[in-house]
Amino acid sequence: MGPDELRSRLASARVGRLATVSADGEPHVVPVVFAVVGEALYTAVDGKPKTTRRLRRLADVEATGRAGLLVDEYDEDWSALWWVRVDGAAEVLEPGSREERQAVVALVAKYPQYAGAAPAGPVIALRIRRWRSWAYDGH
Amino acid sequence: MGPDELRSRLASARVGRLATVSADGEPHVVPVVFAVVGEALYTAVDGKPKTTRRLRRLADVEATGRAGLLVDEYDEDWSALWWVRVDGAAEVLEPGSREERQAVVALVAKYPQYAGAAPAGPVIALRIRRWRSWAYDGH
Repeated sequence: MGPDELRSRLASARVGRLATVSADGEPHVVPVVFAVVGEALYTAVDGKPKTTRRLRRLADVEATGRAGLLVDEYDEDWSALWWVRVDGAAEVLEPGSREERQAVVALVAKYPQYAGAAPAGPVIALRIRRWRSWAYDGH
Repeated sequence: MGPDELRSRLASARVGRLATVSADGEPHVVPVVFAVVGEALYTAVDGKPKTTRRLRRLADVEATGRAGLLVDEYDEDWSALWWVRVDGAAEVLEPGSREERQAVVALVAKYPQYAGAAPAGPVIALRIRRWRSWAYDGH
């Protein structure tokens, strides 16, 4: 896959799996909706029911400043399998900042589910430093 | 979701996303096929094309001994969303060991794609210590 194909597959994926690490080195992974803007990727804490808004993903990002996001599609025909992963520095955006607003706009534009109920945040930004991909055919 | 429902959703999922951490604290996540046997979960390096058999997931497990695996299904109806995640100690099984053979049998039983081409290993075992789950309805 070339750079344009990688970007297209990442940006158009409806769900990603966000990997973070806690301060004491525990791995964590959770499904998220997200939007890509340039070399950044955004995901927000939104209105879906939560036990707490102090989510593990936020604590991890604040503690270690690293994240990765994976997109892939499973198929019983394993020759159709592929994945794309981006890794980089992550941070929780400042509430009310210009970048946070831009991230929310991008999320609402991608997901009609957010229309009328835009995510209230916090918003995690992943600054993409590295692209990795694999496909059964043409890895 | 009760314990039986959690186990059923995990065991029957066709794909999981395996999270690990490198020796220097980098998060990593990759899609894997897997099988659950009792309180252990197994995934194998198999015949799908790889750049190398010395995969990052193996190095991470050997370095830090921790892993988590997430199963979920995306749906545009967000009220249908759910996920189940298991975390615990992880290890690369000894080649040719009884447990490695049992793991391969479980993988072949779950995935007809392995019939006639059983995974050659190595096999990662995740000893489940903690279950986490979420569902939009009934989290």
